[in-house]
Amino acid sequence: MRSLASARDDKKVSLYKIMFDLAIVGAGPAGLTASVYASRYGISNVVIGEAGGLTAKTHEIGNWLGEEKISGFEFAQKAEKHARSYGAQMENTLVKMIKEENGIFILSLDNGKEIQAKTVLLAMGTGHRHLGVPGEKELLGKGVSYCATCDGFFYRNKTVAVIGGGDSAAGAAVYMEDIAEKVYMIYRGNKLRAEDFWIKAIEKNPKIELIFNTNVVGIKGENKIEEIVLDKEYAGSNNLKLNGLFIEIGFNPNTILTEGLGVDLDTEGYIKIDKEGMTSRKGIWAAGDITDGSNKFKQIITSAAEGAIAANSIQKYLKK
Amino acid sequence: MRSLASARDDKKVSLYKIMFDLAIVGAGPAGLTASVYASRYGISNVVIGEAGGLTAKTHEIGNWLGEEKISGFEFAQKAEKHARSYGAQMENTLVKMIKEENGIFILSLDNGKEIQAKTVLLAMGTGHRHLGVPGEKELLGKGVSYCATCDGFFYRNKTVAVIGGGDSAAGAAVYMEDIAEKVYMIYRGNKLRAEDFWIKAIEKNPKIELIFNTNVVGIKGENKIEEIVLDKEYAGSNNLKLNGLFIEIGFNPNTILTEGLGVDLDTEGYIKIDKEGMTSRKGIWAAGDITDGSNKFKQIITSAAEGAIAANSIQKYLKK
Repeated sequence: MRSLASARDDKKVSLYKIMFDLAIVGAGPAGLTASVYASRYGISNVVIGEAGGLTAKTHEIGNWLGEEKISGFEFAQKAEKHARSYGAQMENTLVKMIKEENGIFILSLDNGKEIQAKTVLLAMGTGHRHLGVPGEKELLGKGVSYCATCDGFFYRNKTVAVIGGGDSAAGAAVYMEDIAEKVYMIYRGNKLRAEDFWIKAIEKNPKIELIFNTNVVGIKGENKIEEIVLDKEYAGSNNLKLNGLFIEIGFNPNTILTEGLGVDLDTEGYIKIDKEGMTSRKGIWAAGDITDGSNKFKQIITSAAEGAIAANSIQKYLKK
Repeated sequence: MRSLASARDDKKVSLYKIMFDLAIVGAGPAGLTASVYASRYGISNVVIGEAGGLTAKTHEIGNWLGEEKISGFEFAQKAEKHARSYGAQMENTLVKMIKEENGIFILSLDNGKEIQAKTVLLAMGTGHRHLGVPGEKELLGKGVSYCATCDGFFYRNKTVAVIGGGDSAAGAAVYMEDIAEKVYMIYRGNKLRAEDFWIKAIEKNPKIELIFNTNVVGIKGENKIEEIVLDKEYAGSNNLKLNGLFIEIGFNPNTILTEGLGVDLDTEGYIKIDKEGMTSRKGIWAAGDITDGSNKFKQIITSAAEGAIAANSIQKYLKK
């Protein structure tokens, strides 16, 4: 079982170069932990995705046990190295399609490769939720961003706003106050719902100005962002001039790939799993932020745990 | 909420020196992760137990994402330092009793202290399962051990046996082959059920001799172990001479403290929790190997995740 790839003589599948026990779609904490466990079980596996997933773009992780402070990038690098050290094959690309033929799953990758696998683990996580207001699409990359950690350094000594009131938004505001001249934090609620840790960091920083009970209803600018439109007046105007806007209003599960796959989703679009991480479709497991597991807490630690549990279940399934 | 201790003037509770939002019983991965999350939420907390719990006695951890190889001892030290860095108070002792008075939990510690807390997290984990054969109790510490990592170095160039067929037993056998002259591995089943990683390590080592389909029914010796009695002949005898015996046959939940506490257990004695980590008793949560959660997978990563989920739920409860 341990060899990573085995040639198949069977004519029906001779088109596909590589056969794995397990194909893991997504390379975040869930996918990489599943890979480490699978490899230790002797289950050949490939991990498809960008190492670390969304975690790699987290500015600062402070709640991964044993690490008082680590950047998402460094965490992702360590995690990928760990998975590789036990024999995981990594494919830094996307999966275009998954289909099943004769009891074998076939994955078409964006880099042109095709992969066969006896089992599949869906661990694609979540993507940033969009505001859905005029100008958002048009000005993406021209001042509009969903990732302060990725794009923040473009705004040195500029004026920016962060939209949202949770941990991600708070973390982005605290990150930006080191870089920008001025940081507005705009939230539709009447108080932040972030961890006390973040709230204290925001409160002690005069550079961050909180605007509560307010929605952003439009984003304006020619070739780059110039101002945003608020649904109520702030400082005497509905318009707020700025150079950058970070939208941190939550996440949606990345379940496009599951369309037509016969995997049951819950009403919010998350993949339903049982306590072993199994989906409604035989041979397919799911783990991490994309599932309805772990009380939907969406933490690195809960995703990783789901990956481990799924790998254990997959091992039992393959042994049968 | 962030201050660790607050004096209380109330006469009824003036006997008890310290009042916490949360008392965490057990300092393994579940307890320490819960503490990190709680502290970041601004929830004052005390962690009672030996840092790392059973994890601290694990020889080698290879499946904690990001760490290719780390000793249990080092992991425990890092985890404790992390929890302390956010303000956890640590009490390296045992809890003798938990009772509730006027909606406040009172914990009597083995070091004489008494602690008050608004909520309790039970994270005492599991203890080593015993064989229950004649001589086991009498020769404990005289050749009989439940922890190869702790006691293995006493057996340099000696003959030892490990009982069990799972990951713990396999890990102990591989650890002992570096130290002992000869390692028997005795298992009642007909093949090991450990990870492939461990099985390969055992197979390539001629110093480890596997004895399958066999039970140990007695342990003999005067002041120290001399031989064990098998339920069937091996190499022409029911007796096997040795200098050390490591019993690694699994774990039982450490639920003595829960007696009389009104916390529901399942048929195997594990604490029943809901998806938020709540027990059947209001104000008491449980996390880690002691619970029926995480498909009872009993991994560091699953325990840590349960600790995080419970801390999140406790935070919501305390805010109400």
